[in-house]
Amino acid sequence: MLESIQSPADLRRLEADALPDLCQEIRDFLLSSVSTGGGHFSSNLGTVELTVALHYVFNTPQDRLVWDVGHQAYAHKILTGRRELMHSIRQAEGLAGFPKRSESPYDTFGVGHSSTSIAAALGMALAAKQKGEAWQAIAVIGDGAMTAGMAYEALNHAGDLDADLLVVLNDNEMSISPNVGALRKYLTRLLSGRMYSSMRENGKKVLSSSKSLSKLAKLTEEHMKGMVLPGTLFEEMGFKYYGPIDGHDVSEMVSVMRNLSQIKGPRLLHVITQKGKGYEPAEDDPCTYHGVTPFNLKTGLVAGKKAATPTYTEVFGAWLCDMAALDQRLVAITPAMREGSGLVKFAEQYPERYFDVGIAEQHAVTLAAGLACEGMKPVVAIYSTFLQRAYDQLIHDVAIQNLPVVFAIDRAGLVGADGPTHSGNYDLSYLRCIPNMLVMTPAHEDECRQMLFTAFQQKGPCAVRYPRGKGIGVLPEKTMQALAIGKGELLREGHSGIAILLFGSLLAEAQQAADSLDASLVNMRFVKPLDESLIQTMVKSHTLLVTLEDNAVQGGAGSAVNEYLTRAGLTVRVLNLGIPDTYIEHALREQQLVACELDAASLIRRIRASYAPKPEVQPKLMAVPRQVAH
Amino acid sequence: MLESIQSPADLRRLEADALPDLCQEIRDFLLSSVSTGGGHFSSNLGTVELTVALHYVFNTPQDRLVWDVGHQAYAHKILTGRRELMHSIRQAEGLAGFPKRSESPYDTFGVGHSSTSIAAALGMALAAKQKGEAWQAIAVIGDGAMTAGMAYEALNHAGDLDADLLVVLNDNEMSISPNVGALRKYLTRLLSGRMYSSMRENGKKVLSSSKSLSKLAKLTEEHMKGMVLPGTLFEEMGFKYYGPIDGHDVSEMVSVMRNLSQIKGPRLLHVITQKGKGYEPAEDDPCTYHGVTPFNLKTGLVAGKKAATPTYTEVFGAWLCDMAALDQRLVAITPAMREGSGLVKFAEQYPERYFDVGIAEQHAVTLAAGLACEGMKPVVAIYSTFLQRAYDQLIHDVAIQNLPVVFAIDRAGLVGADGPTHSGNYDLSYLRCIPNMLVMTPAHEDECRQMLFTAFQQKGPCAVRYPRGKGIGVLPEKTMQALAIGKGELLREGHSGIAILLFGSLLAEAQQAADSLDASLVNMRFVKPLDESLIQTMVKSHTLLVTLEDNAVQGGAGSAVNEYLTRAGLTVRVLNLGIPDTYIEHALREQQLVACELDAASLIRRIRASYAPKPEVQPKLMAVPRQVAH
Repeated sequence: MLESIQSPADLRRLEADALPDLCQEIRDFLLSSVSTGGGHFSSNLGTVELTVALHYVFNTPQDRLVWDVGHQAYAHKILTGRRELMHSIRQAEGLAGFPKRSESPYDTFGVGHSSTSIAAALGMALAAKQKGEAWQAIAVIGDGAMTAGMAYEALNHAGDLDADLLVVLNDNEMSISPNVGALRKYLTRLLSGRMYSSMRENGKKVLSSSKSLSKLAKLTEEHMKGMVLPGTLFEEMGFKYYGPIDGHDVSEMVSVMRNLSQIKGPRLLHVITQKGKGYEPAEDDPCTYHGVTPFNLKTGLVAGKKAATPTYTEVFGAWLCDMAALDQRLVAITPAMREGSGLVKFAEQYPERYFDVGIAEQHAVTLAAGLACEGMKPVVAIYSTFLQRAYDQLIHDVAIQNLPVVFAIDRAGLVGADGPTHSGNYDLSYLRCIPNMLVMTPAHEDECRQMLFTAFQQKGPCAVRYPRGKGIGVLPEKTMQALAIGKGELLREGHSGIAILLFGSLLAEAQQAADSLDASLVNMRFVKPLDESLIQTMVKSHTLLVTLEDNAVQGGAGSAVNEYLTRAGLTVRVLNLGIPDTYIEHALREQQLVACELDAASLIRRIRASYAPKPEVQPKLMAVPRQVAH
Repeated sequence: MLESIQSPADLRRLEADALPDLCQEIRDFLLSSVSTGGGHFSSNLGTVELTVALHYVFNTPQDRLVWDVGHQAYAHKILTGRRELMHSIRQAEGLAGFPKRSESPYDTFGVGHSSTSIAAALGMALAAKQKGEAWQAIAVIGDGAMTAGMAYEALNHAGDLDADLLVVLNDNEMSISPNVGALRKYLTRLLSGRMYSSMRENGKKVLSSSKSLSKLAKLTEEHMKGMVLPGTLFEEMGFKYYGPIDGHDVSEMVSVMRNLSQIKGPRLLHVITQKGKGYEPAEDDPCTYHGVTPFNLKTGLVAGKKAATPTYTEVFGAWLCDMAALDQRLVAITPAMREGSGLVKFAEQYPERYFDVGIAEQHAVTLAAGLACEGMKPVVAIYSTFLQRAYDQLIHDVAIQNLPVVFAIDRAGLVGADGPTHSGNYDLSYLRCIPNMLVMTPAHEDECRQMLFTAFQQKGPCAVRYPRGKGIGVLPEKTMQALAIGKGELLREGHSGIAILLFGSLLAEAQQAADSLDASLVNMRFVKPLDESLIQTMVKSHTLLVTLEDNAVQGGAGSAVNEYLTRAGLTVRVLNLGIPDTYIEHALREQQLVACELDAASLIRRIRASYAPKPEVQPKLMAVPRQVAH
């Protein structure tokens, strides 16, 4: 049946009673394709019936369906003409992992970050009204995404405008990490015994005169006890609340959505789904199966043996536990990224000092500021791309007040398969313009640990930004020692007149280039403050400075070097290498590096083009990273 | 009585029945000092009794009192030892207009932007718990500020943690502009007839058996009708809700707060106040009296005669109405800044195309993206400092998707009396690193209008950033003509070998410097894309390039010039002038310019120091701004 569906129009030609079988086919397809090619897993298994029901009832793409985050939109891609390309998802030149406007007219809004769908769909609904068009706008949003402030802002606005908008709350009782917050407790109360529907029923009964008085009194008592009428949170925001309904009963959903499609105004449909639905290991452990690499469906994911070298995330996680043991003032904050940010062990070992605030980056940073005011030492573990959502809080609440908050910024630079929405390409630019900030870029894993330690000793705000995945394999030392602030190190002294000033993770590429070109290589370590005296020394003995970073060239670390040179009145030929001024599409990180011409071969070529080196001179290694794992 | 109070400890020695008189004294003092020296007016008159009650009941500064926004904290400053300095508020070297940690131990958290207080106070409450200390944390927040997402994020987290936190909701039924949103409607329902208290009473009655059955039935019916129990929105977030109570009855507040100080857990006290309380003209028109310059209390604010030259804000407002008349697709969005952003006329003329989303910058930008997806042409009117709060939405929802949204960025650069929290010093840095952005900096009023027109024609995201207040007096032309993208103009050809590349509002200063130094002067107009060929021409005929902007030097427009020069392999002496890497304290904008060494005299001195010009050569003017008002 699935192969006959090239578009939702084909789907809508099916009889309603064929839908459960179709859902099974989609689920089988998903199981097979994701276990073969990797990708987001648990979320997609949870939304099969919901997706089928939405496309069956609504006239997509004329009716605008907006997904939130988008890691649950695989069934949507399958039903909208992209089934045969699903094997290519998240791969170079393949389908994007998230909805993307340029990929399909059914992808009405590009997503990746959480909690944008209500605002976007509201904008569409208002446009329809302005243009006098009759199509509908539907936002799908998870319960985790509902904890973010911008979802609330959008609800508040939509309810006020009485806009024609349907919000489908896809409640799977967790975001990527198990969900937290008062809202979760509230939704759980909603679910218990379907209180709401029964309350409505009871209400009718109470108002009819035929009931016995004793029963009336009893019902009334029940109402008053809780002082809580489920659904009212949304109703107080101006939405009509419907549900909860079973998100795996496609027939029930089709019937309810048909009714809802006839109603005007702001409506919220509460749908209960299960992450990993239909694949038992994922149902039992949806976190582990959130995003997967290829695996055998029969055996499930097998815990790989512990790798010899840790990821940067693991380096951070280990440092955090070690530091917490040394300093009671340390508290750690994550906006719903316990696993992704490497906080699982810390959360177990120090539950009292661990704060998962939900998908709430703004709150995470201002909470840290409040803690810092009272002598605590907060560490905010956050992805570079998500720190964009707390930029004002970082400036206004932390940096202006010069509070000692450590920002442990993961996923800086290119991030691979998640693509442009998750790239951490801007943090050096948006952080170094802020007074009081101290910004560090580790070149390898041990340096990351030492920089985190260094940051923790400071009396003002510090950022340590490190990339996704593994580094070059310099195992972190157990001992921790603070680095000299604003001091870089000369790694290699070359003889070609070329000096490479490295900021951050591209150490291997830089070393290859330096060796090949007989260039000097400096690990700058600090973007702010810059090691100006070291730069000055390099200028004196070199004729070309090459700045290298995995951040946008615009306003990045290289740009800081340029500013220093102009301020100091030093004239020297400079080449700023970094991420170019364009969005780098999803691919392997290595492929993205090539696309940015930041791989070793490209570096060599670009530096050569800028300056003729002396190719025959042999390299001379100045400093060896302390311990390289095999 | 007021003169005897040097600190809250003195206040707490008073008998409770003396407090109403004290409040009157404070109000008289406020009326006198603000009408004489200027400052925030309506909000401060509204919070006199609330401030007295808080300091009377709570043991400040040991108990942490966190104000939100802070433009209502004058009575707090008066009671905490700063009465005699109130005449200096918002002036150079004087008191800050907002709470500021460096100013007083009673200022527990520096503020300026809205909606941070719950997160900050929660951080403090958690710190107290960690440290085993018994003091209390109290957040005061306005009903307008409650519409912001981060307030909701903090409520959600505090409710979940069951933290010992008192939130005082200061409900004056408006933020700076009249308040909008479903929350406002909800709060209004709460107020009507004090439904909540009476519901609680009724509840008890219902549950007692002594009532007659007919009465019981009637009460029950009343309950069911609304299906809304006021207070539940906060209770669903895990807070105990108390109120609403009269925020001008200091005795009632003292009594309620005493009770609340004995209770643990998250509590919300709903207090009703009136902006402008005690001064009739301000009660009647709190918007006009929000922030005032000195005026006569007897006559009130007198509308000045229309100035000959408009402010940039007025230039924007006029352009918006003109553009809306020409293009039906234009819609305008403001996050609660109708007056400040110059939208009053547009809102009157085009109510259907005007969206005040409340204090909700994140939503404002993603809503614009949604509208743009459907062919509307949204203009987001926002202050530079507040756009920081929608940075991720600008990147993720607008720029990555290359949607045609116009950002009309007011209050860019130095803003005067509001100080560092409101400075718009970073936007050029944080915008120009984002691919697809087009960034313009008008040098005068007419150019601002033409740039807005130019931006509106584009197919991708555009920013036009302009300063607070007036420009040099170039009256905008009625006709609108699109500028050539990425093209600057040579304003003056000098003979000293110096070229000043101006980005934005410092035209008068640049002209003086250019005349004095016989420098060439280029109005660059575009930060992105840069006019590279013009820069190249300048390099050929000059030996020193001076970049000039009212943005941070770090990553700013000058930095873009540096990047181009290095990319093009052009070596020339460069001087980057802009806002230095520090926070510029509140003062007159002119004083701030001097502090930044960006006034004409400083520019001349700094350029001279960088390069010896030929001082005897006479200036030669190349281009005159079209029409200069007298």
